[in-house]
Amino acid sequence: MSAGEFDLIAAIAARAGVPRGDVLLGIGDDAALLAPPPGEALCVCVDTLNAGVHFPESTAAFDIGWKALAVNLSDLAAMGAQPRWATLALSLPASDPGLVEALIDGFLSLAEAHTVALVGGDTTRGPLSLSVTALGSVAPERALRRAGAHAGDALYVSGTPGDAAAGLALVQQRLACDDAQVRDALIGRLDRPTPRVALGLELAGLAHAAIDISDGLLADLGHVLAASGVGATLALETLPVSTALRALLPQAELRWPLQLAGGDDYELLFCGPPERIEALPAFARGEFTRIGRIEAAPGLRLTRRGEPLDWRPDRSGYEHFAVQ
Amino acid sequence: MSAGEFDLIAAIAARAGVPRGDVLLGIGDDAALLAPPPGEALCVCVDTLNAGVHFPESTAAFDIGWKALAVNLSDLAAMGAQPRWATLALSLPASDPGLVEALIDGFLSLAEAHTVALVGGDTTRGPLSLSVTALGSVAPERALRRAGAHAGDALYVSGTPGDAAAGLALVQQRLACDDAQVRDALIGRLDRPTPRVALGLELAGLAHAAIDISDGLLADLGHVLAASGVGATLALETLPVSTALRALLPQAELRWPLQLAGGDDYELLFCGPPERIEALPAFARGEFTRIGRIEAAPGLRLTRRGEPLDWRPDRSGYEHFAVQ
Repeated sequence: MSAGEFDLIAAIAARAGVPRGDVLLGIGDDAALLAPPPGEALCVCVDTLNAGVHFPESTAAFDIGWKALAVNLSDLAAMGAQPRWATLALSLPASDPGLVEALIDGFLSLAEAHTVALVGGDTTRGPLSLSVTALGSVAPERALRRAGAHAGDALYVSGTPGDAAAGLALVQQRLACDDAQVRDALIGRLDRPTPRVALGLELAGLAHAAIDISDGLLADLGHVLAASGVGATLALETLPVSTALRALLPQAELRWPLQLAGGDDYELLFCGPPERIEALPAFARGEFTRIGRIEAAPGLRLTRRGEPLDWRPDRSGYEHFAVQ
Repeated sequence: MSAGEFDLIAAIAARAGVPRGDVLLGIGDDAALLAPPPGEALCVCVDTLNAGVHFPESTAAFDIGWKALAVNLSDLAAMGAQPRWATLALSLPASDPGLVEALIDGFLSLAEAHTVALVGGDTTRGPLSLSVTALGSVAPERALRRAGAHAGDALYVSGTPGDAAAGLALVQQRLACDDAQVRDALIGRLDRPTPRVALGLELAGLAHAAIDISDGLLADLGHVLAASGVGATLALETLPVSTALRALLPQAELRWPLQLAGGDDYELLFCGPPERIEALPAFARGEFTRIGRIEAAPGLRLTRRGEPLDWRPDRSGYEHFAVQ
């Protein structure tokens, strides 16, 4: 055999060694055998990253591997699920052991941080693409769905939205920045997002609805409102802003397109009873911020210091088929 | 929103309607919620089909969708698992509702035949590619692994290997055929393979080892022998041959490269105690054939009517990175 598909799978399998007692049979047979925890629902999602569409062609291979898993762990986090296993379908333009090694390094370093076992792999020839299916578990009655938002809920977001969109604008030279530290911080949020797994687990059984921000805050909030049949008011002055984004764009209005309509944040947007949610230690640690409230009246209202605002983004969210 | 990603997912979700009581939450949230059967292992595999690599560019969209699921159900069959759910990551060169509809038609028509629910989907822009993760279940002690072959086992294959490779040779004009019926039959085996799910379920807990033939009979048999630490003798005159393949190539020697080294058959290759395996109704129905025996001596020996034969294929199996 050449340095072909079989060697590549063997190389990946040899490194997929997060030891988990619930992996009965890992990579190397026709399929993996796994032991789901009794009484919990299996939680499954799939997301693909294609070069030039979901990450700039210049992105480091380590970061591509990281991000391919991160966006999926973020979906599990948004369900309140405990990540357990993942499969990776890797398409590569040519056999390139160095590239594969760096991709797998990035993938596995995030996998190890969350004790996720890589249990299935497939490598094919084609343009660079990583398709990941992530598997986790959550007690069904504790799962965070999009459809549970109630009028009276407070609305929260984790982290500081807009940083990834600012990073993309810097990479694409739509924005410029002389400060290397600011630049690196923002591009780092684009290339290596942090799935909010621990927060999702804390919110399970507590928040009424949750989603992760992949398409932009307004677009993803719109999904929750539509699924729940409610509306919301968002207080723009409460949007959390990172030090780096504030340094890049000191004027709030210039940050809104990035914070409200930028994609790729992979923060959690969720709502629920404020007295219980703000009692979580993560709130005291500043891991999430109250940014608005859920209301019975349909539609999304933006305010600034209590005054209505009719600002709308040029395009609401990030549609892969709509953008070049 | 344009006719972009969200509409496409909604269109797929609206059609993903195999009703299963074990789907607690289907497409439309951050992740699906599924109820695995208590006491069984979850069985998970992933396989990707890329245009021009895993199917000729001329393949009908219906058949591409069918095959993307078929190759994964074949992996579950080779484990003796009951298929339950699947996710589909679809990469498309441009938004093309007609193409998507035909791909999904093919995918769902096979899914419905096996009551498999499509529970996760992702559509991205890129060269045509379908990456499927299939999920099933099997009692762990009944699962068919590669590593269980014993000396004394009889060796079996389902169906008639070589047909898909002959179909590919016809499509690529490496072989010619005037008989449209023969031609269609062979190309049909390439484009629309039959995952041997029911046979896999019958073999669970009975066969000692199994694999599905995707890389070619000899290559896949080699995987079983290596995993089990045994050898085998294969009696070439017992290889089952389809009417169409015999019509195309009446001379056995010319069929061997296709039957022994051709990929894409998705038949089951398995071994076990002949007295029990040949008592299965599927054996009486001719669904599988005894083609050899497992032996303690390592290596693979080919015979023809009892005489040793030193025939070897030019290349053993089908490596995607090694072929152009």
